[in-house]
Amino acid sequence: MIIRMDLGAASYDIVMERGCLSRAGQLLNLKRKVMIVTGELVPRIYAEKIAEQCQEPYIHTIPSGESSKCFPVMEELLAAMLEASFTRHDCVCAVGGGVVGDLAGFAASCYMRGIDFYNVPTTVLSQVDSSIGGKTAVNFRGIKNMVGAFWQPKKVLIDPDTLKTLPSRQVSNGLAEALKAGLIADEELFSAFETEDIASAPEQVIEAALAVKKRVVEADERESGLRKILNFGHTIGHGIESVTGLLHGECVALGMIPMCSQEVRTRLIPVLEKLGLPVSVQADPDEVLTAVLHDKKMFSGKITVVKVPAPGNFVMESIMLEELPELIKMVVFK
Amino acid sequence: MIIRMDLGAASYDIVMERGCLSRAGQLLNLKRKVMIVTGELVPRIYAEKIAEQCQEPYIHTIPSGESSKCFPVMEELLAAMLEASFTRHDCVCAVGGGVVGDLAGFAASCYMRGIDFYNVPTTVLSQVDSSIGGKTAVNFRGIKNMVGAFWQPKKVLIDPDTLKTLPSRQVSNGLAEALKAGLIADEELFSAFETEDIASAPEQVIEAALAVKKRVVEADERESGLRKILNFGHTIGHGIESVTGLLHGECVALGMIPMCSQEVRTRLIPVLEKLGLPVSVQADPDEVLTAVLHDKKMFSGKITVVKVPAPGNFVMESIMLEELPELIKMVVFK
Repeated sequence: MIIRMDLGAASYDIVMERGCLSRAGQLLNLKRKVMIVTGELVPRIYAEKIAEQCQEPYIHTIPSGESSKCFPVMEELLAAMLEASFTRHDCVCAVGGGVVGDLAGFAASCYMRGIDFYNVPTTVLSQVDSSIGGKTAVNFRGIKNMVGAFWQPKKVLIDPDTLKTLPSRQVSNGLAEALKAGLIADEELFSAFETEDIASAPEQVIEAALAVKKRVVEADERESGLRKILNFGHTIGHGIESVTGLLHGECVALGMIPMCSQEVRTRLIPVLEKLGLPVSVQADPDEVLTAVLHDKKMFSGKITVVKVPAPGNFVMESIMLEELPELIKMVVFK
Repeated sequence: MIIRMDLGAASYDIVMERGCLSRAGQLLNLKRKVMIVTGELVPRIYAEKIAEQCQEPYIHTIPSGESSKCFPVMEELLAAMLEASFTRHDCVCAVGGGVVGDLAGFAASCYMRGIDFYNVPTTVLSQVDSSIGGKTAVNFRGIKNMVGAFWQPKKVLIDPDTLKTLPSRQVSNGLAEALKAGLIADEELFSAFETEDIASAPEQVIEAALAVKKRVVEADERESGLRKILNFGHTIGHGIESVTGLLHGECVALGMIPMCSQEVRTRLIPVLEKLGLPVSVQADPDEVLTAVLHDKKMFSGKITVVKVPAPGNFVMESIMLEELPELIKMVVFK
């Protein structure tokens, strides 16, 4: 299955197909130098599978975890490309999760002012979320994704077979973003989570979530309007992520709860529980609040949040900062 | 006079007008936070003139010289923006020469994945050269402009009055790039250098050189083809720049000499002498060669250079690396 992203000159295909990693040599232009960027915890075999199909492969492994999304780690990657005499006609290929994709994509966007980038996401989260949309970034001075670029990949390969090696907690972590897509824009997708055993066969849900994200990103590539709805659950979610050891999708799951109507929440909680996602967390609500304000760089009186009054529907709402503690307390307990 | 850069969604105006700095408040959208980036050696009055027309100005001064084009100095600038709670709707305004513009532009391109950038070049070199084309960058591991972005400004203000404070060596330094434009694409412009006293009234020459660069950049925004002709004189020039203390334009002047036909060279030398630009330099030719190869990241046998067989005409020529020493020795003596 191919999802075509229509973004003018920056258009590209997302190829989703079991075993497509083995066909990378046909699907991508690998007849050049290829800097394969992967993570310490990503099964090595995926990067090696790509490498064996390249004319001149280099594998660059970054430490796992969000802390790798920083200037020093990016500079090491850029230095490796320089060391190997990469020119503008060579390319970068990310093989791994969101951290790998965000970092490698940003490096590709600025090496010699921009070279080709391929993305091969190997986790549910990165397949659903960071594989599509062209957002690349590093964190900076404690703020997530503070510095980066919109840099669309030339192609994305999603091989569902890579999910077989993924721990179940990581599967649920990614499904939280698919659930988010259902809640804001696809009631049927949300219902599937209620009635089916998604975690054991996530493929169709990934497809449906990508379809939602495709529509939104095509309408607003640079997030000047509609694309903000994809931040549903992220305002409080990012705050929780900063002060706990929870995974991104787990925090988004928590962050969605206060932003749903009572009716939706009643249906959402059992879905989260079924997926093994948290529905509450022990942390200091004041610390979460501070993190939210820091993350949003907010000093004025208002903030725009996305709310879901009914499954498949969203509203953008401007709320007072004073309302935030009340919302946070719905999921964060001391 | 307004030069309209036609680059689709990234189109913008270059306003060239005596005294336009005093009208910045009308010409630019300064009703927001504005990070005015300027250089230590740039007369402070220019940044202050812009600042007094801003709703919420910040002035950030970087050390003068090429060594400021680096990640650490850029990170300080990004941190200053973060510190002042800049959002995506705020902007960066460069006031100074090419180093200031390149660094500020790259920072604007990646702060929150890109915010508005204005450029107010105050030297002949930056008015002729770096103000137009959207190239931003930092140097990295000894290589000029290795990491950066194509990020078009929202508007460029060129105030010829700022040249009154410019040392004459800096005027000639910038005129070398205008002379380059004449040699490759505008015979009349080249002739003006032969017959007129350009250095004392550079305004018209700046205009003519901008017209050349506009045509070239519009045809090839991302330097995949034609735009490479703007590198005329830069291959050997960059090499000389790396190993001597000469200014960029001075090195370009030297770098052009070997790339001209005998006929053109005979006319070029007196022009360079009139402008006070060097026509030869004492340095180690082998060191220059090493620097050229390093700069071009060349390890293969061939390199494409731009040559000028007659004023206003260029040819792209593929030469063997072995031919480089001979060319270098035309201007570099031990």
